Amino acid sequence: MVSSLKTALEYARRAEPEALRELQDWLRIPSISNVPEFQPQIQQAADWAAQRLRHAGLKRVNVLATDGHPLVVGEAMSGKDHAPTILVYGHYDVQTPEPIDAWLTPPFDPVVRGDRLFARGATDMKGQVMASLMAIEAWIKTAGLPVNVRVVIEGEEEQGSPNLAAAIRAHPRRFSGDVMLNPDAGMLGREIPTIVYGLRGVALAELTVRGPASDLHSGSFGGVIHNPVQALVGFLAGLHDEHGRVTVPGFYDAVRPLAMEERQSLARLPMDEAFYLERSGVPKLWGEPDYTPVERAGARPTLEMTMIRGGERKSAIPATALARISMRLVPDQRPGDILTGLRQACEKRLPDTVTWELKVLSRSAAALTDLKTVWVKAMSDALSAVWAKEVVLMREGGTIAVVSHMQEMLGVDSVLTGFALPEDNLHGPNESVHLPTLWRGVEAMIRFFDLAARPASSPSPGGV
Amino acid sequence: MVSSLKTALEYARRAEPEALRELQDWLRIPSISNVPEFQPQIQQAADWAAQRLRHAGLKRVNVLATDGHPLVVGEAMSGKDHAPTILVYGHYDVQTPEPIDAWLTPPFDPVVRGDRLFARGATDMKGQVMASLMAIEAWIKTAGLPVNVRVVIEGEEEQGSPNLAAAIRAHPRRFSGDVMLNPDAGMLGREIPTIVYGLRGVALAELTVRGPASDLHSGSFGGVIHNPVQALVGFLAGLHDEHGRVTVPGFYDAVRPLAMEERQSLARLPMDEAFYLERSGVPKLWGEPDYTPVERAGARPTLEMTMIRGGERKSAIPATALARISMRLVPDQRPGDILTGLRQACEKRLPDTVTWELKVLSRSAAALTDLKTVWVKAMSDALSAVWAKEVVLMREGGTIAVVSHMQEMLGVDSVLTGFALPEDNLHGPNESVHLPTLWRGVEAMIRFFDLAARPASSPSPGGV
Repeated sequence: MVSSLKTALEYARRAEPEALRELQDWLRIPSISNVPEFQPQIQQAADWAAQRLRHAGLKRVNVLATDGHPLVVGEAMSGKDHAPTILVYGHYDVQTPEPIDAWLTPPFDPVVRGDRLFARGATDMKGQVMASLMAIEAWIKTAGLPVNVRVVIEGEEEQGSPNLAAAIRAHPRRFSGDVMLNPDAGMLGREIPTIVYGLRGVALAELTVRGPASDLHSGSFGGVIHNPVQALVGFLAGLHDEHGRVTVPGFYDAVRPLAMEERQSLARLPMDEAFYLERSGVPKLWGEPDYTPVERAGARPTLEMTMIRGGERKSAIPATALARISMRLVPDQRPGDILTGLRQACEKRLPDTVTWELKVLSRSAAALTDLKTVWVKAMSDALSAVWAKEVVLMREGGTIAVVSHMQEMLGVDSVLTGFALPEDNLHGPNESVHLPTLWRGVEAMIRFFDLAARPASSPSPGGV
Repeated sequence: MVSSLKTALEYARRAEPEALRELQDWLRIPSISNVPEFQPQIQQAADWAAQRLRHAGLKRVNVLATDGHPLVVGEAMSGKDHAPTILVYGHYDVQTPEPIDAWLTPPFDPVVRGDRLFARGATDMKGQVMASLMAIEAWIKTAGLPVNVRVVIEGEEEQGSPNLAAAIRAHPRRFSGDVMLNPDAGMLGREIPTIVYGLRGVALAELTVRGPASDLHSGSFGGVIHNPVQALVGFLAGLHDEHGRVTVPGFYDAVRPLAMEERQSLARLPMDEAFYLERSGVPKLWGEPDYTPVERAGARPTLEMTMIRGGERKSAIPATALARISMRLVPDQRPGDILTGLRQACEKRLPDTVTWELKVLSRSAAALTDLKTVWVKAMSDALSAVWAKEVVLMREGGTIAVVSHMQEMLGVDSVLTGFALPEDNLHGPNESVHLPTLWRGVEAMIRFFDLAARPASSPSPGGV
């Protein structure tokens, strides 16, 4: 076993230069999720992924249509009796690169500077997907996979996966497995291998406030009609109280109090006030005074206005104004209830001098995964072997819809890890991936497949 | 006199088809004031105007450089002793055409539908300028001008004329005259010839709120840092109290109470609640409960958020959010004091979890003109002769910086009229000008030049 592991690791190491070139090709395709104009590039990125799966040696590779962006699936069977099946998750869509001006080099012209590769999607998550495929290919092309692998690469993660539940229902066989390996969660620092056991859910809605039938001269109509920008900001301003608590009716009803044990465990994470100040560059932190920053970021529900738009650079009262309201949810908060609460707040607080519309864009529940499974043990051992460090277990503030969908619909737990670093600036300008960390990630996943194939009681391997 | 007037009127009537073609050429140049990318088109529109002035027979036509967009000037002397000098004002810049999608035909592809010409700038105010030039040309090319005329066509009116005061200081001779004729004010309805005797001033500022150094993942940093959108909307929401009164410190200190006589006169205007509801399409009017709609629109100061921007269609807390705050001022309110009050409000109410910047974009005081001058009498008689109706005298909610500049710097009053109609949708999509009204405006201005040349005691002319 040790020698086949060694062969796979060596294969992967030799493949790094070629994998980097391939990753750059993939990153050149602006597969931006939220902008309809990029539909052709979405299709192109999906086709590219399918081709790369075939090249890695996977079978039954398909690009499945959905009501939104296509889904890329494939599988590779180990041929071994009783081998477990690992579902490997990824997404090929990326966030919009705005603000473009803040990029040092164009977001879709990937470039290596030092030990980093810069491009939109480099770390979130085309780089992570490429690492997974390298790990799978390393086994296929050497001793053969010790586990069965199914790969699912979706194209709507950055929109909250609105069509993924329907795809799981339509193709349950392509999603069947013993556990999902999801490297979309990232790590706390270069030398801090991390497994995430909790993710927040999300409820995202767009509120449009309509005033006059068309933009009107602000001198002729100001003071007589209610500016929809003004009505909107008045509503939004009331969504938090003066202590930073969210005022949406029922918002905290289902939130479990944080257990003392969990607070102590969160307090041990290297994410103190200085960490958040340095990472963000803000003059002062903000938020609920009764909770520490790391509790607020990962274990408390939040409400953010991620976008607001109204008017132009002209002297007019605009016809409409809109805002996106993104609520991150903790376990037991039901997205439907929260969105109902938001609608009630609109009904109660938006004035009758304007009309409004609330459109739900995505929703998914929070997820907590069981830390006591053989899969978490296998990944923990694999990460420890590569980094020679104990693994940090943490809850994360982000949302990955597939995790709760798989748990709720198929009863499949996820092992959440990843090789994105806090300084990678995912979703921001100058996104990059730290290549040495990514290659360590490949090694960790190669080891994970090996450890996952063996009885959990086996000792973890020492050196190779 | 009657026969030379008749000849001038006939000349203008014959010139209508050619003037319409020329106006369309001018409207094809997107001389958008507020967007730096349109600098070449601004220059092109100024050059076009200069050429058209020469064509009309004006002399000393120049395109004068300013720190901003150029100014077009020219003059035509009557050669008659003791002839008064009329300054004719216009602007060749236009508002941005956004939202483009709301236009039935492209904003810079002027098209006649029915008796209207549709294009950005058709009514505000390239059409009005063309009407003035037709009136001047009709006299020059027939009996000769009965008055001296100076023309000033600026390129920054839609920005609040930030460089106009400096231009007046630099070229006082080009601005000298007995009165300024300003047809940028519009009329209340097709059959309601209107002279405006009061204009509001403006103080326009842009407030930028900065949070994190770059856009940050809303899941990882939500609840820990203050979203600049949230800080901004909190601030903006507090700029009005629950009665629609502006809360900027000192905002109402210098505002004169409305005199009973003026309230009665405003109440006679055909601008009731139904008028504003129909023109705007809002479900219900809004504003200070102690004032009628027409009082609120023209005689009370207001504060509007004409633009707000923050974030993108991605799940991130944006680095910045910004809003434009436009305050319309009544007589005695000093723009400098009002802007100081706004800055004080920022200092007092914006939290230290963000940083901010307040940039003043334009300022000008309100203007009230004397209704008892020979010039108002001449214009009133000219309008009555064309429309066979009594002229309505009114205050208007908009701002035309040149009016207060000319009053304060050179002691020159303005006669404010114009042939734009409420339904022309100036500043909005599908802006248009009603051609029959515009041609009536040409006739009114031809008559005004005639009446302005004669002693005020002369009887007004009957039929021609």
